[in-house]
Amino acid sequence: MNPIRIEDPQDERVAAYVDIRERDLVGRQGRFVAEGKVVLEALAATGRFGIESVLVLENRLAGLQPILERLPPHVPVYVAGRDVLDRIAGFHMHRGILAIGKRGELPAAADLLGTLSANALVAVLVGISNHDNVGSIFRNAAAFGAGAVLLDRTSCDPLYRKAIRVSVGAVFKVPFAIFDDAAALADTLDAGGFTQLALSPRGELDIRDAVCEGPLALYLGTEGEGLPEAILSRIRTARIAMEPGFDSLNVAAASAIALHRFARIAPEKPRLP
Amino acid sequence: MNPIRIEDPQDERVAAYVDIRERDLVGRQGRFVAEGKVVLEALAATGRFGIESVLVLENRLAGLQPILERLPPHVPVYVAGRDVLDRIAGFHMHRGILAIGKRGELPAAADLLGTLSANALVAVLVGISNHDNVGSIFRNAAAFGAGAVLLDRTSCDPLYRKAIRVSVGAVFKVPFAIFDDAAALADTLDAGGFTQLALSPRGELDIRDAVCEGPLALYLGTEGEGLPEAILSRIRTARIAMEPGFDSLNVAAASAIALHRFARIAPEKPRLP
Repeated sequence: MNPIRIEDPQDERVAAYVDIRERDLVGRQGRFVAEGKVVLEALAATGRFGIESVLVLENRLAGLQPILERLPPHVPVYVAGRDVLDRIAGFHMHRGILAIGKRGELPAAADLLGTLSANALVAVLVGISNHDNVGSIFRNAAAFGAGAVLLDRTSCDPLYRKAIRVSVGAVFKVPFAIFDDAAALADTLDAGGFTQLALSPRGELDIRDAVCEGPLALYLGTEGEGLPEAILSRIRTARIAMEPGFDSLNVAAASAIALHRFARIAPEKPRLP
Repeated sequence: MNPIRIEDPQDERVAAYVDIRERDLVGRQGRFVAEGKVVLEALAATGRFGIESVLVLENRLAGLQPILERLPPHVPVYVAGRDVLDRIAGFHMHRGILAIGKRGELPAAADLLGTLSANALVAVLVGISNHDNVGSIFRNAAAFGAGAVLLDRTSCDPLYRKAIRVSVGAVFKVPFAIFDDAAALADTLDAGGFTQLALSPRGELDIRDAVCEGPLALYLGTEGEGLPEAILSRIRTARIAMEPGFDSLNVAAASAIALHRFARIAPEKPRLP
């Protein structure tokens, strides 16, 4: 690894990093921005997305050495001083670690489902338009061994900068796909032998009593309106019992409870006394 | 209710609302700021904190009528146009609903514990310094029927504006107290017959196997360092099993899982078919 020093904020080689916040809003033509050490580590470790380049603050370089050495050798590592970095990014980048990733082609939902294990847990997100919630749900999905996350077109982009950050890199670990038509997806899941369960405050089953063997698709909807009636009337529904008068749970919190309930994680090794 | 029209952003009657964001940082001498309809509703409904005044955008007044009519008659309701309101607050207040609450005296932790039911669930927060996390934990505590939240001095203020907002008003519903000394608190909880359980990634019990009858105090620590060794070595510990290689859960997500596991909520009424 030969870090390349950037002295000029307008250097063409770091053009993809210019005005990061503004660009969040207009998209990036097939790229995304990853920030922070944990996120960069996940991006590099999972290898599911290409890395175009890395830009780090000079005083962070030594601490990142173990991660940077594992990057493919063709990935340029740019290094800048505090002032140059802030002028490139357009705001004070206190983490001082950025990377540009390549989106590539996402798999079709049906193809992704075809790659999963016989006992897979899948989260299906409908209308989750808040980046924090999408990031948090991916983090929970990774922690509890979900094999995939499927998002409808109204859910927000998991590769949006803030969703990546909140997920602590889980969006690079848990494969995801976008689907157009919930009814067609439900058919595909049916055909694949998936049990389908929709979380809803008015669900028929208490989630503590829900039993599931084999592959499971867990549907999560928006906090305000919940899942569309077309989904709720087609598949089984489960509720998280709450205090009467305060039956309000953030969708990320609901995902933590439900994904933990159906976690698919490797058995733990025996513990030494 | 006779709304009082404010035309001058420097009107002394709305001095407590001036430069809201700046004042978040320096404190407010016994007051707090509540914002948004759901939060104002919780503040008014629970009655645990006094309300000094309310300031609303003129076009929100009609929609708030049912809430405002339930306020004590001495609470002034100020009304302002968009421009005046934004100039008072110092930024664009798109919700247009603000109230100044009075902190009053918090109970001592031991006194608060003395008021709880024989089967109470209590969350004990140690070092939770992120306002989103504190707000989210209160929201989960309210949803799952916790009787109290106890916070150490390094945890952040539940009456900070953002914590209130994230809690969707749960900080007004679930009584809380601040404690100085974790060892003394553990003694008090012991004496009160509480089972004490600390959440830790290296906990001895899988939380799914933990059984608890009677009152329970559930300790939650920071994400990075976790709970102090002095606590972990004194009380039982429980873990939330996670995927090897991604054993990273946000503390608010962990609180959702643990509080749901031990939820103390009124039995549900039989459901009509």
